[in-house]
Amino acid sequence: MSSELSYPKSKVNKVNRLADRGKYDCKTVHEILMASPVVHVSFNPGSPEEYPVILPMIGKLGSFENPSADLSEPLDLYLHGYVSSRIMNVARKAAQGEGEADATPLKICVCATKVDGLVLSLTPNSHSMNYRSSVIFGTVELVMDAEEKLYAMKLITDGVLPGRYDDTRIPPDSAEMQSTQILKVTIDHASAKIRTGEPGDYEKDLKRDDVRAKVWTGIVPIYQAFGEPQVASYNRVDKVPGYISNYIKETGDAEKEYALTAIQKASAGKS
Amino acid sequence: MSSELSYPKSKVNKVNRLADRGKYDCKTVHEILMASPVVHVSFNPGSPEEYPVILPMIGKLGSFENPSADLSEPLDLYLHGYVSSRIMNVARKAAQGEGEADATPLKICVCATKVDGLVLSLTPNSHSMNYRSSVIFGTVELVMDAEEKLYAMKLITDGVLPGRYDDTRIPPDSAEMQSTQILKVTIDHASAKIRTGEPGDYEKDLKRDDVRAKVWTGIVPIYQAFGEPQVASYNRVDKVPGYISNYIKETGDAEKEYALTAIQKASAGKS
Repeated sequence: MSSELSYPKSKVNKVNRLADRGKYDCKTVHEILMASPVVHVSFNPGSPEEYPVILPMIGKLGSFENPSADLSEPLDLYLHGYVSSRIMNVARKAAQGEGEADATPLKICVCATKVDGLVLSLTPNSHSMNYRSSVIFGTVELVMDAEEKLYAMKLITDGVLPGRYDDTRIPPDSAEMQSTQILKVTIDHASAKIRTGEPGDYEKDLKRDDVRAKVWTGIVPIYQAFGEPQVASYNRVDKVPGYISNYIKETGDAEKEYALTAIQKASAGKS
Repeated sequence: MSSELSYPKSKVNKVNRLADRGKYDCKTVHEILMASPVVHVSFNPGSPEEYPVILPMIGKLGSFENPSADLSEPLDLYLHGYVSSRIMNVARKAAQGEGEADATPLKICVCATKVDGLVLSLTPNSHSMNYRSSVIFGTVELVMDAEEKLYAMKLITDGVLPGRYDDTRIPPDSAEMQSTQILKVTIDHASAKIRTGEPGDYEKDLKRDDVRAKVWTGIVPIYQAFGEPQVASYNRVDKVPGYISNYIKETGDAEKEYALTAIQKASAGKS
């Protein structure tokens, strides 16, 4: 579709290696992020550490200004965490500026990856995995507006399990509002990378009958599965609510189906 | 066990938030990394980009000097990739030094996360996930020694699927040896963080009969599942080899079992 919205290719987000696997349309990038229970967030905490830091966090996409926007439209990423955790402190310090220094909002990278299968080919070097990954590069601000914070809390809760928020004890009380910090990530650059298809081997191995006779080639599908819900010791509700059992059934089926249909799709690149 | 080897707590790796969930013993940190099909690797590519970068990569632990070492012992992390991919170029440049500058080996962070369940409690803020994550902070060197490179290639292939390497067309030929770059990460700091157990709610909600009567509380287990192996169009081997079907069966069962038994374990912290 020529009308689909895409992230522009830039020096930051361009997929160089196996470029055919790169995707830039909003829908693809956003769907992978939303399908991942956790995302990995990387930031630089500043001295004295010299290492970037990665945290697994829960992050969901939405638009406070345009709440009805779907995944093919421009969105922001909301991350939530405890108010005094390190990433929150670093983001706060960056937003406020330090001493004489001007404020320079924290820049982060967020990556979500789904592994869809082991790709088993004739030779170790052409082994691979079927996978989907999205990477975004963004600028962080702290959400201070109470209305936007509530919007993000519902977005994140329902992003993990649709329909859950309204079925819990809401709204969050003032202690909960204060102990939770929401980060809003403006997406500056983004891309996805996807491998689908069967294994790929080079002619040098495909023409060797001894190798072909010995080595099983194919894909082992991998997918995220859900088990039967287990009640808490203090639960008093008899039946698992329909929105939970339906979500588990539908998402579980879709995950399994994706891993299988991905094998039938064309692959890009040899390994 | 007082005799187990652990990573020392430092400013870099110490788990501050919900410190009870922090683990530092080699075995726990290493097991989570090895159980993850991909790890997330973060590095700073240097100017002109201001963002750290995250890449999903395949990484496995081993010791070339002490190949019989098990997961409770000190190990290195080996990552593999295409020789001219960006992380390889950045690592190479850092190892060689630039212009007048001395070599300063690349510092990276690597994180592996397994999500084991959705933790559904009475109020959105006490929702959580059962999970296991390992984070290591390390220093990168390029493996140039052919023997160590071969060791790492086998380690990585068998780390994904035990027994696979010897069942493929080996050894890698000279073109394959040249196009593959192995990175060896010396682990400078590391820790793990684990949530197990049932949901946790605060007294203020537990004593409310209206809330307890309405909100289902419990855990939805999540685990990595394997589908039936699917043959490649060019496969000529009749039967899926035993090491593949056994691995799928055993690992699939273990993953499912972990998600369930994790619920029975004690939890640390309220959410």
